[in-house]
This record gives sequence, structure tokens and C-alpha cells, in this order.
Amino acid sequence: MPDASPVRFDMPLEEAITTQRAVRRLKPDPIDDALLLRLIELAQKAPTGSNAQNWEFVIVKDPAVKAQLAKRNRQAWSLYGGLGRRASRGDPKMLRLLDAVQWQAEHLHEVPAIVIACLRGPRLPWPNFVSASFYGSIFPSVQNLLLAARAAGLGAALITLPLWSTFSARRILGLPWNVTPCAVIPLGWPIGKYGPTTRRPVGDVVSLDRFGNRPWKGKASGAA
Amino acid sequence: MPDASPVRFDMPLEEAITTQRAVRRLKPDPIDDALLLRLIELAQKAPTGSNAQNWEFVIVKDPAVKAQLAKRNRQAWSLYGGLGRRASRGDPKMLRLLDAVQWQAEHLHEVPAIVIACLRGPRLPWPNFVSASFYGSIFPSVQNLLLAARAAGLGAALITLPLWSTFSARRILGLPWNVTPCAVIPLGWPIGKYGPTTRRPVGDVVSLDRFGNRPWKGKASGAA
Repeated sequence: MPDASPVRFDMPLEEAITTQRAVRRLKPDPIDDALLLRLIELAQKAPTGSNAQNWEFVIVKDPAVKAQLAKRNRQAWSLYGGLGRRASRGDPKMLRLLDAVQWQAEHLHEVPAIVIACLRGPRLPWPNFVSASFYGSIFPSVQNLLLAARAAGLGAALITLPLWSTFSARRILGLPWNVTPCAVIPLGWPIGKYGPTTRRPVGDVVSLDRFGNRPWKGKASGAA
Repeated sequence: MPDASPVRFDMPLEEAITTQRAVRRLKPDPIDDALLLRLIELAQKAPTGSNAQNWEFVIVKDPAVKAQLAKRNRQAWSLYGGLGRRASRGDPKMLRLLDAVQWQAEHLHEVPAIVIACLRGPRLPWPNFVSASFYGSIFPSVQNLLLAARAAGLGAALITLPLWSTFSARRILGLPWNVTPCAVIPLGWPIGKYGPTTRRPVGDVVSLDRFGNRPWKGKASGAA
């Protein structure tokens, strides 16, 4: 392992956040282990409930394991993709997104690395705040990983379809019963490129004090 | 509203990620609305499942609403805090964390702004991958918000205790039944300061191809 990762993460935070997007079309070229480990080291800096730091990350590079994950993904996609296309008729933006997801489904076994972000500990489906604490201990770290991948120029996306059967995912990855797979991040050098994303004006998703009280409706922050 | 937020977010990504930590002791001094909105604008850049962009953020500044959230938080803390102190006897680091949470519980109504991150849409407790897709659509945005707060020099933390009763949280915030509160982020100018956090070596939380296969055990990435 080299002494230092060849890639720096000194992109300004605002640039990383505003140009992050799902990049699904990836080249098969390998990624240095040192870079993969550094991405996960940065993921580890995110908060966890009660500071338990109970993440587990599986980096999959073995073609046989990738093929099994890709197969599970295709199974789920064959159902969701068809539904999605029917629901998105006449929405060119959504159809472009579905094309990219389709590409990903056909090529998932060829990407150089697939990271599965998992959590140790019991997963209770209820009440909401317990579930929120559970998943809230892994998705902040996933977002760190995605931002770091963006800064490194790696393509990445957050998906969950390969996990449609937790039982099957546990079997493929050799996960014990008390380790829950939560997110899948295929990583590779991008065929496409990163770029800006479109969002509703912030004033449309913000309420003041009580839901529905929208003093900033239609407005941006003024800093964009 | 000013034309531009006075605060820049040009801190390098790596610095923001590696120096982010829960900052719970906050001054009561106000935060500019433009800055609050910019934090949420950056939160909105995070991915959501099927690109639904179904977040809702409630910014609470009204003392009466803050007091109600603080009361719910104290109720949960009076139970969890006692258990935590008993479980952490002889662990000075954990006891320092509990002191900070205790301070937060006593002063939550005094912080200038409390952001509640919510999601529209049905929350199904099962299966795991559906729950993961649900909470995976809000916690990446929460992490963006925490990183942006760090870069702006604002203190912030991710908590869920004020939401122990979803019913009660919905009533306090006027949330409809199909909007689920998922995370609470108290924001304010810090009394303490940000600084490095400690984590296990990345090699101890990473497996290669199958869980438990740890070729990098005890190792850092080499880039830290």
C-alpha cells in the first residue's frame, strides 16, 4: 500500500456539495486500495447514535461476489424499472435517470469496486425515532463517502435495490445476523461527468416554526 | 433578506469532514435567516431515493415551539441519560459526552434555531431495504447540513430524542400524517470549538469481498 493516497480532497466543501450527483456509468478500470480506504476513513468521521461507531464496510472487488450482487439488483430492477418507465412516460428527465439506472443494472458486475455500508446492532422497525437513530448512524457516513468520491473525481451513487432481500445479501457477503446491510455504493472512474443538479427553491421546502408557514416561498437563499 | 450569505463554505472538504463533531453547547445569539436558508439549500443537494426530493425542513425559532421540543427531549433524556450514566461508569470519554448532552437537554429551548428534517411519503417499517431507502433519503441531506454548519463555524449536532413520540412531534410542529420527522439539529454559535475526533483504524471496520476478511486490519489508509 502506498504511503499516501495520490488524490487530495481539498475541493471546497460548497463545490463538492453543489456538484455531487449520482454517476452510474463507470469504467472498469481499477481504483487504488489506498484511495478506497481513505474514502472509508472519511466516511468514519460522520456521527453515529450514542457515538457507537458501529459501522462495517465491505469492499467487493471479487468478480464472483460482484456478479451475485448484480444479479440481485437486476431481479429488483426488472420489477421496479418497468413500473418506473410506465409512471415516467412523458417525463424526459426521469426517463434519462431510468436509462442510467438501466445501464447500471446491466454493468454492475463490471465496476471496479462496490462498497456495502452496514451497521452492527439490532434493527428495530419501530418506533420511528429508533429506526431514525439506526439509519441515521450509517447514512451520514455514506454521504461523506459520496462527497469524498466526488472530490476525488470518482463516480458513485447511492442504491439499495441489491439489498431487496436482506437474507440473500447477508448470505452473499457472509454477514452475521446482527450486521445489517443498509446501502450499496458502486465506485469507478466516470464515463460521464459530474455537474450541477436541479432542486426546488429552498423556500418551498422550508417552514418556519410550524409546518406550512412558508415566509420564504419561491425564494432562494440569495447565496447560490 | 440580504443579497448574499455573509458566510462562505470554501473550507476544503477534507478539513470539514475531519473536524466535524457534535457541538452541543451553543450561545443564544441569533443566526441570520440567509445563512439558515443557505444551509438547507446545501442540504437539498444530497441524493434522495428515485430523486423524489421529498424533504421538508422546519426551522424553529419561536420560543414557545422550542420549549415544547425541549420538554419532549428532557422527558426522553431523563430515562436514557440515567441509563447512559450507569452504563458509562469508569469511561471518562463517554461521561464527557453525557455531560454535553445533559447541557443540551437543559438549554435546548435557548438555542437560536432548531431544524427538524422531515420526509414526505409513507414510512414502511419493513422490509429493511425499504426503510433504508426512506431514511437514506433524509440523512445524506442532514450530513450536508452538518458539514455546511461546520464550515460556517456554527455549532450543530444530530439528535433524535425530541422525536421519541412521533405523534407528539407532529402535533408540536403541525406536521400532517404523511410527513415524518426524522432528525433534529440544534444550531447556534458554539461556546466550545470544533476539533479532531477519534476513530478506530479504518482497517478494523473494512472487510474485503466477504465479511470478516480483513487484509488491512489495524491499518490506516496512509493518507491521514
